[in-house]
Amino acid sequence: MRIVGTKQQVRDAVAAGRGEGKTIGLVPTLGALHEGHLSLMRRSVADCDLTVVSVFVNPTQFGPGEDLDEYPRDLEGDASACEAIGVDLLFAPTVEEMYADDASTVVSVSELTEGLCGAYRPGHFDGVTTVVCKLLNIVLPDRAYFGEKDYQQLVVIRRMVRDLDIPVEVVGCPTVREDDGLALSSRNRYLSEEERAAAPALHQALQRGAEAAREGATGREVERVVARALAQEPLFRPQYIQAVHPETLKPLGDEAGPMVIAAAAHLGGTRLIDNVRVEG
Amino acid sequence: MRIVGTKQQVRDAVAAGRGEGKTIGLVPTLGALHEGHLSLMRRSVADCDLTVVSVFVNPTQFGPGEDLDEYPRDLEGDASACEAIGVDLLFAPTVEEMYADDASTVVSVSELTEGLCGAYRPGHFDGVTTVVCKLLNIVLPDRAYFGEKDYQQLVVIRRMVRDLDIPVEVVGCPTVREDDGLALSSRNRYLSEEERAAAPALHQALQRGAEAAREGATGREVERVVARALAQEPLFRPQYIQAVHPETLKPLGDEAGPMVIAAAAHLGGTRLIDNVRVEG
Repeated sequence: MRIVGTKQQVRDAVAAGRGEGKTIGLVPTLGALHEGHLSLMRRSVADCDLTVVSVFVNPTQFGPGEDLDEYPRDLEGDASACEAIGVDLLFAPTVEEMYADDASTVVSVSELTEGLCGAYRPGHFDGVTTVVCKLLNIVLPDRAYFGEKDYQQLVVIRRMVRDLDIPVEVVGCPTVREDDGLALSSRNRYLSEEERAAAPALHQALQRGAEAAREGATGREVERVVARALAQEPLFRPQYIQAVHPETLKPLGDEAGPMVIAAAAHLGGTRLIDNVRVEG
Repeated sequence: MRIVGTKQQVRDAVAAGRGEGKTIGLVPTLGALHEGHLSLMRRSVADCDLTVVSVFVNPTQFGPGEDLDEYPRDLEGDASACEAIGVDLLFAPTVEEMYADDASTVVSVSELTEGLCGAYRPGHFDGVTTVVCKLLNIVLPDRAYFGEKDYQQLVVIRRMVRDLDIPVEVVGCPTVREDDGLALSSRNRYLSEEERAAAPALHQALQRGAEAAREGATGREVERVVARALAQEPLFRPQYIQAVHPETLKPLGDEAGPMVIAAAAHLGGTRLIDNVRVEG
């Protein structure tokens, strides 16, 4: 596996692979790789002839007061994990390599970004869509892999790719969980022992909501079920609990039907998100 | 020459050309092709193995009260002109082919779009950058050709391409003028006989400014020279007259040096723009 830091190195390596007729997969990450990322990488290695993983803690998707400076960084560990899985190229650029001093272009998806995390993290999705657009233009992959754990992000990226006619297949992959149900996240390492013990309550509460949804509950009823269940764990301070349409992300309100039940909650100083999808 | 209406037809034709090792040139236009467009197309045909011309009156770059409905359309004439020059593929999509009903992604360049035309046409450049980004993703050309007559547009597109790492070379081509100096524009056909006779005054005024700039005048002085000269033609109602830095588009104010002198002015119901560049 090669580790490179410049866009040109990526372009050259990918062009060489293309010249040999290889298909290209991209897994964009912020690093601090865990089994969730590794599942995306394994999928890409299985699907594609050449897999590129990017590790870039993108400052433009962090808001003021968020954890940009504390965000875990472990390039050496990340590289070992990529290598073991059969990744071909690890792209770990600096902020300066990615953004010119006078960078002034933003890719912005409206509507889908208004609710859920978008309501609490202004500018976050603009940062995500802009950097993902850049990575797609640098790597020009056939497929790009994203986790369903960041469900809103996945829907927003699919929309951007469709609207801008970006020639890539966006592949969403299932959330990977600990045995007790906690969704894997690089931020889980912020949790104290007590918080870690409480953390599975988020997924459990969402599961309760999913059961209600399967029994025909409306979006609003599902949200109440989840809120009541999560209230059992007093360490959690919920930010939002919403039952939304899987594609439009609009709140279901008094309707029942296929939905994604998504929640964000603080556990101590750590913000966790999770979601479950209920089919029709 | 083939005329196609769908993105997929373009992708297939370009992929076939790529498979034969051809280089690809793109000339994005709004149609109503004149010698200015033809000069871009000739350049592309000379530089590239396969030239794609897009003809699309993009609604998102027209503001309320602008001339979207009146904008001249002549696909048959455009096709003849493209054919004669050796264009390989004419892409003339419908609005529905280009934009999904729920399209919600915008590519936006800030700062560079604040002054000049951007100040008088809110949203115009977002429409331009978004549709050009789409066209670049559909055609994936090696080079894309734009006229210097729309100077701000050219600088904005260069910025977008740099900031989003779009793998294309943006080629700017000199403004083509009538014998009397009037810059070619699809909108010139709106002019009455009397207005057409007055129209060269815009370029003449800019030339007077350029002479002053070459003699060391500051931006502000140059603007005054142009304004005085243009005032000789009472049919013109100037919108802006600005001497700006060629790359940042910031007004030069009390500084002299390399500049672009740009102006927009109404002549009857028609808005004309023009610019001249003064090297250091």
